Amino acid sequence: MRDFLPQDVRRRGYAIAVVEDTYRRYGFQPLETPALENIETLTGKYGEEGNKLIFKVLRRGEHESSGETDLALRYDLTVPLARVVAEHRGKLPRFFKRYQIQPVWRADRPARGRFREFYQCDVDAIGSRSMVVEAELCSAVADVLQQLGFRDFTIRINHRQLLAGLLDAAGVGPELHGQALVALDKMDKVGADGVLRELQERGIADGQRVLAAFAGDVTLEKVREFVGGRPEAQGAVTDLEQIFGLAGVTSAGSHLRFDATLARGLSYYTGTIMEITVPDLAGSLGGGGRYDGLIGMFSGENIPACGFSLGLERILVVMGERGMFPPGVDAGGTDVLVTLFEGEDPAEGLRLARELRQAGLRVEVYPEPDKLGKQFKYASAAAIARVAVLGADERARGVVTIKDMRSGEQRAIPRAELPAALREPALRQVAEEQQ
Amino acid sequence: MRDFLPQDVRRRGYAIAVVEDTYRRYGFQPLETPALENIETLTGKYGEEGNKLIFKVLRRGEHESSGETDLALRYDLTVPLARVVAEHRGKLPRFFKRYQIQPVWRADRPARGRFREFYQCDVDAIGSRSMVVEAELCSAVADVLQQLGFRDFTIRINHRQLLAGLLDAAGVGPELHGQALVALDKMDKVGADGVLRELQERGIADGQRVLAAFAGDVTLEKVREFVGGRPEAQGAVTDLEQIFGLAGVTSAGSHLRFDATLARGLSYYTGTIMEITVPDLAGSLGGGGRYDGLIGMFSGENIPACGFSLGLERILVVMGERGMFPPGVDAGGTDVLVTLFEGEDPAEGLRLARELRQAGLRVEVYPEPDKLGKQFKYASAAAIARVAVLGADERARGVVTIKDMRSGEQRAIPRAELPAALREPALRQVAEEQQ
Repeated sequence: MRDFLPQDVRRRGYAIAVVEDTYRRYGFQPLETPALENIETLTGKYGEEGNKLIFKVLRRGEHESSGETDLALRYDLTVPLARVVAEHRGKLPRFFKRYQIQPVWRADRPARGRFREFYQCDVDAIGSRSMVVEAELCSAVADVLQQLGFRDFTIRINHRQLLAGLLDAAGVGPELHGQALVALDKMDKVGADGVLRELQERGIADGQRVLAAFAGDVTLEKVREFVGGRPEAQGAVTDLEQIFGLAGVTSAGSHLRFDATLARGLSYYTGTIMEITVPDLAGSLGGGGRYDGLIGMFSGENIPACGFSLGLERILVVMGERGMFPPGVDAGGTDVLVTLFEGEDPAEGLRLARELRQAGLRVEVYPEPDKLGKQFKYASAAAIARVAVLGADERARGVVTIKDMRSGEQRAIPRAELPAALREPALRQVAEEQQ
Repeated sequence: MRDFLPQDVRRRGYAIAVVEDTYRRYGFQPLETPALENIETLTGKYGEEGNKLIFKVLRRGEHESSGETDLALRYDLTVPLARVVAEHRGKLPRFFKRYQIQPVWRADRPARGRFREFYQCDVDAIGSRSMVVEAELCSAVADVLQQLGFRDFTIRINHRQLLAGLLDAAGVGPELHGQALVALDKMDKVGADGVLRELQERGIADGQRVLAAFAGDVTLEKVREFVGGRPEAQGAVTDLEQIFGLAGVTSAGSHLRFDATLARGLSYYTGTIMEITVPDLAGSLGGGGRYDGLIGMFSGENIPACGFSLGLERILVVMGERGMFPPGVDAGGTDVLVTLFEGEDPAEGLRLARELRQAGLRVEVYPEPDKLGKQFKYASAAAIARVAVLGADERARGVVTIKDMRSGEQRAIPRAELPAALREPALRQVAEEQQ
């Protein structure tokens, strides 16, 4: 877990603002849920591995000594959403489109772009089985990534019912589907030969038949033929065809790629599954899919749902490594430092600061009357581009002396003109370039 | 703990944006710390009562069955700040001015405006003993409250060294100071007679002598006389006089009031203490003070610090009850619903949505081709003010029909003029008024 110092927070804030603004343009509404959920809400939703990574909170009060736990930290944003929809159904519109940007916690081993506390940016549409939902979701996340400056991302897409149909058609019994998917997931890393070996090691005798379905140039036409008369798998192919048709008119179009080997770990997916990758990051920037059964686990009522989750930390890691942050993001943000003269009343400085703040400027006041040289040094160290000096002489003349910390230039500016002068973009830029 | 549905999030977001914007204008920089701290970081900082309210997290892995805990949920934002300053001192400017807006957790009984998970908006200045710091902090929180629309708040101020001096001068031994403060804290509720009774019940024999210091019209002049030659208490009065002098030129001036009975619960305060109240809320909207010893508990190095914490939940409770949110905050934020025709390709609707979104509008697409009447009904229920209809007829004529859901009026608008027409403020307002 990490502290975010001011520059980190500014970078995170920049990315979050882009995500929010884009999701709002798609008509998604904001939701926030508590960090702590009842333990029963979370258990049994993330598979066996996931269960082990849930942080549990000790029951408070007299029960503390027993080591009993009743609450747990949010593990993702999808399960809390399902609980909220089940709980507040009457207050929500029939098609509830929500985004949620909050931290989640997992008791995992940290790695590059993987932390025990990390932010997810989720976007979900509740209430419809239409593939318009999938197309809009892919378009929204593609827009987010493009707004952040990404060009080279791929949205891989697949379907759980198609996976089941392909494995069934390849003669793999349902009890071995999980094993087969783990092997197929390594196609990129170990190639078809490697997958074949792995399939055999995992108890799937006729690996060649599996590879016939999954290896090489696998198109929707090819898999439709392969799954034959299996109705769920045929429906899955139709779903995918529809998504490709619709996404073609959206910003997701050129990024979408069918990938028959994509499986996704979470156990609650029931239909389409999606994952976003970029060439220079192992693992994904985000993923999602359809989970038509999850809300029903809380309310009994079957309500369809589909969503996408972007991993903020990984996006920030790649943006940092590629230098994708606009220069203004790293600027300290303080426009001017107001100095305080030794032996004079600090109220004069506070009065000046008030005037400038009322004009919308960002003003820091040096807290202790001191030698000017020391205050200039502080401004440089704190990356504040300009310093305001208001001594008895300046007050008599009705001016303020502004020192530009980069050029060293000093100018006496009439007090009434000061806000406008400090807003000049040329001067503002200094702070950005200095960083 | 609570879920925040879209309207709640918008209201919270509005208040947070005002707080952030104001703090930035004072030169404060953003900081964020993890939700989980090591237990040792938090224990012993909040007094005995506070200790009991800390949520503890079960140690993960093989230790889980032992009930052992190693992490705890953030209890406030001040102790994590002190840890950060001790840990990252070299990376921070000499005067570190930071704001932090994050949730904290307390295993407390919920009440009006009091929750187990709640947001604090903290602003602190590290590194200076100057009373300019106190004056700037009071000014910043006064500006925040004024920007939010509050006019009737009071910032009560006192000083821990003055409290000690007054009690000492009134003949109360140090071991009874805590008891005396609990009694004096009830002055507003039970009056001087009630406090006298309470003082006696709490073992302070000469309650009249205590009341002489604390009851009636207590001014700084009066307490200066009362504490006599006690140097710390004299210094405290000088500090307070300075703050009043400086705050006079800031927005805090007319709100600041000296209150000799103000004590504040937290154990880490060493100097000035502040609290903000409004007439219609028992308890405070926020509070703060000077804690020159806290950072040294982590680093050994004595670094002065002073800060203010605003309680977001209480501010929101009062704003809600008083109807202080601008109407725009409650508007759903979606500009238009794009309908999908039965039997037609949804891609036409997605194409239109893309055009409008690129023009900066907030657009929801009805996910399922359906009867128009049903889609209109949905727009009304979801408080979307306008609906776009794009059928074969409209496409042939190069127009889009816009239905205003409030007036029922329909207009055919040339497609190229659509973004401008949908941005008209008169139309936008419909959504706001409908709420």
